Amino acid sequence: MEPEAFRSAAHEVVDLMADYLAGVERYPVLPDLEPGTLRGRFPASAPEQPEPLARILSDYSAQVEPNVTHWQHPGFFAYFPTTGSGPGILGEMLMATLVANAMLWRTSPIATELEEVTVGWLRQAIGLPEDFEGLYTDTASTSSLIALGAARGAATGWTATTRGLAEQPALRLYASDEAHSSIEKAAMTLGLGRDGLRRVAVNDRFEMQPAQLQAAIDADRAAGEQPFAVVATIGTTGSTSVDPVGQIARICRQEKLWLHVDAAYAGATAILPEMRAPFAGWEQADSIVINPHKWLFTPLDCSLLLSRRMEDLRAAFSLVPEYLRTLDRDRPVRDFNEYTPQLGRRFRALKMWFLLRYFGLEGLRRRIRFHLELAAALCGWIDAEQEAERLAPTPFSTVCFRWRPRRFAGRETEAAASAELDDLNQALLERVNRSGEVFLSHTRLSGRFTLRVAIGNLRTERRHVERAWALIREAGRTLDREGVTVGEGVTIGEGATTSGAEGPP
Amino acid sequence: MEPEAFRSAAHEVVDLMADYLAGVERYPVLPDLEPGTLRGRFPASAPEQPEPLARILSDYSAQVEPNVTHWQHPGFFAYFPTTGSGPGILGEMLMATLVANAMLWRTSPIATELEEVTVGWLRQAIGLPEDFEGLYTDTASTSSLIALGAARGAATGWTATTRGLAEQPALRLYASDEAHSSIEKAAMTLGLGRDGLRRVAVNDRFEMQPAQLQAAIDADRAAGEQPFAVVATIGTTGSTSVDPVGQIARICRQEKLWLHVDAAYAGATAILPEMRAPFAGWEQADSIVINPHKWLFTPLDCSLLLSRRMEDLRAAFSLVPEYLRTLDRDRPVRDFNEYTPQLGRRFRALKMWFLLRYFGLEGLRRRIRFHLELAAALCGWIDAEQEAERLAPTPFSTVCFRWRPRRFAGRETEAAASAELDDLNQALLERVNRSGEVFLSHTRLSGRFTLRVAIGNLRTERRHVERAWALIREAGRTLDREGVTVGEGVTIGEGATTSGAEGPP
Repeated sequence: MEPEAFRSAAHEVVDLMADYLAGVERYPVLPDLEPGTLRGRFPASAPEQPEPLARILSDYSAQVEPNVTHWQHPGFFAYFPTTGSGPGILGEMLMATLVANAMLWRTSPIATELEEVTVGWLRQAIGLPEDFEGLYTDTASTSSLIALGAARGAATGWTATTRGLAEQPALRLYASDEAHSSIEKAAMTLGLGRDGLRRVAVNDRFEMQPAQLQAAIDADRAAGEQPFAVVATIGTTGSTSVDPVGQIARICRQEKLWLHVDAAYAGATAILPEMRAPFAGWEQADSIVINPHKWLFTPLDCSLLLSRRMEDLRAAFSLVPEYLRTLDRDRPVRDFNEYTPQLGRRFRALKMWFLLRYFGLEGLRRRIRFHLELAAALCGWIDAEQEAERLAPTPFSTVCFRWRPRRFAGRETEAAASAELDDLNQALLERVNRSGEVFLSHTRLSGRFTLRVAIGNLRTERRHVERAWALIREAGRTLDREGVTVGEGVTIGEGATTSGAEGPP
Repeated sequence: MEPEAFRSAAHEVVDLMADYLAGVERYPVLPDLEPGTLRGRFPASAPEQPEPLARILSDYSAQVEPNVTHWQHPGFFAYFPTTGSGPGILGEMLMATLVANAMLWRTSPIATELEEVTVGWLRQAIGLPEDFEGLYTDTASTSSLIALGAARGAATGWTATTRGLAEQPALRLYASDEAHSSIEKAAMTLGLGRDGLRRVAVNDRFEMQPAQLQAAIDADRAAGEQPFAVVATIGTTGSTSVDPVGQIARICRQEKLWLHVDAAYAGATAILPEMRAPFAGWEQADSIVINPHKWLFTPLDCSLLLSRRMEDLRAAFSLVPEYLRTLDRDRPVRDFNEYTPQLGRRFRALKMWFLLRYFGLEGLRRRIRFHLELAAALCGWIDAEQEAERLAPTPFSTVCFRWRPRRFAGRETEAAASAELDDLNQALLERVNRSGEVFLSHTRLSGRFTLRVAIGNLRTERRHVERAWALIREAGRTLDREGVTVGEGVTIGEGATTSGAEGPP
């Protein structure tokens, strides 16, 4: 594509982009589709001859745009939201044009140095000391994998990365029952196995219990196994609970274990001075992950990995074959590919630099505070509603609750009532999501089917949270009155039970 | 940023992008910088208050654009080029706007189904049978990690992913001396250790020797170790040599080993019917990686992983916690996060769909053929030049050679002459790269410092390759006449030797 043809095409695409962002509310957040219905609309083979761009763009408008799940819709409250903010998108546009690979300093000096600069900006903004350095990765899964890979290496005197784990004592990693699946996946990837991750019980606020952690470590040591790392979570995925990082850090210090803090979602709030309490002790961690693509309005992907042990990260992942050697290596140069399982790396610092400057820290604080206020408002409405109950504390902007009609009051311990409440809330979730106005997801807390409203989209206004709550109340009352339909048309009247389609009740 | 403000800002950015692509040749390919000189130009902390976009964009133009390594420059011949093609960039622009996370079908139905569609298009275009399915990952490193993770799991009856590798026999993986560092990194990450990778000797064409592979497997089995996978490379990174995949596949079948084919660079040429010979036998592989962001003109990042054993990939990386369960799971739905170490996934299918349609397969074939012709032309010039010699066959578009002044004829086996040739070619590389007109990288083949010209940038014309060759000849003659300067000013006259800054001579 000649530059002038590109210019004209890109201007056309910009209008599609701006129109989309301006009008995203015209779409149902979650498209009303059955799996497998889309692929048949496309040819079975790639075209042999070039197609006109106009046709590609019109197919985009007809076939793609309506059939994405609209993460940019202000009614997106599922999982943890990811915002494509204006400056973030502009940064991505330039990244895609430069295609500067940030694998070596030499393969793009500014990409490496702007990464050092903006990582430093973020470190200061969240109040961590200077001995934390870091880098961007694609996702929190990768960030945690790197941290745990370094921990594994350091704990074994680097046997893990030289001779491997075979014929060695079993390594043990600790995280709470509520820790993210990426920690377990890292254990699988790193060769520790799922058994390598010891799940530590949580209290009724879904926070790791330090005494249980200590007991698990002691038991493993007694069995001849080798504890090597603990993952503490600030803002778990289910309920956004906060593990007691200070107490866990003390245990890690005594036991000489690597402490990795997963603050992928909640870490963004550390830029608010008034929100530092949940983070007390995290400065003692060996490594920390925070995802700008969660609550810092950065388009997917960007995860920030900070560590006080960069040399251990490097020892775990550095390989410099001849074709990557450069004459720069005798100078103080950082080649970030030496810290990651991947070699190629996008120039993510560019979008971070754009958005940190465009919003300024005060602008980011104001927006995050607004989300916290919206969540607090929703909590107030739920707490004031006799037929709803929160199922977890709300330390950040994610509210966990369920609908509980009056007739269930005091019956929560009955198995039949409990199953019926699960079904009712699952049906409520489906109904509310089918409205197209909002998209919520769920989790299970203490075995209960739990609705989750995660507020973090830059475009969400108070009216969207109000509307979500109105839809939830309406659905809750209607379902209670009319009976619950779960999944493929199974209707359940009052008092009847089902295990539902979603696992054990 | 309000949609209309975004519209106007994005139009402005489009002009920066188009101007950049139109004028990239005004920049030296490799910026003339010392490591560490850029970071000091930026403030030490993020701004507290928002900054005007105009200032950010003008700083971008002044501080960022001139200081990237210009991968889009038509004189970029280093490593393997990555092109930000027009349709690829347009796709990225829309990806950044939708921010549709392709982790679950439900989190963006079209992202999942368009991935199935375009992966199918690519599979057919490269002539692989229907039993290959696949997905996009960020990089070949990740694709190979996934394949080897699945192989590891399958070979151990999934002990590797459940109980872990501890107290188990050592697993052994085989790849040639010329295999990419990502394979060794995967061995480190997966807990096999660097020793887990057995390097198989190559012949004088840098191709794996099947008899040596068989011998290594036999020796490891005799020692009580457990061979589990072989990586064959079609287009190694150093010399782009081609392992004999058919013979290796036969050994893998007999030995019941997983065969992973790394065709990250060269795989793109399989869309040319006349170029299928190097790929003979790859249809017997268990998994194959090809990088669209190398020679299919896709902006970073996009790697294609194909496999006939998708269920094994899934078994190695699937975890479905409650908060990711969806009501779609009893239907034929593919949730791609179950096949990857990462959870979040960009909507890469969108840019692939754009560019496959925009170019058409014939358009892609024409451009790749052109690169092959340019490489053949360069080979012709080198072969006709008495003072240059190719150091490897050129099966694709990457030419490996060195300058060898007449006085060295017949002296290559002398250690002093060999060291001097290395220094001369290293100095030549530095000098040519300092010209700003081209950027070449190097490798070491049979111990010799080797210049590499990798042709694969969409914007490269014949005149750029001609100019590269002119610069190389000129530098070679000048250095031979004037003496060699290596690294920090060490001047070496005729007959003098040095080990250089780049490792053993």
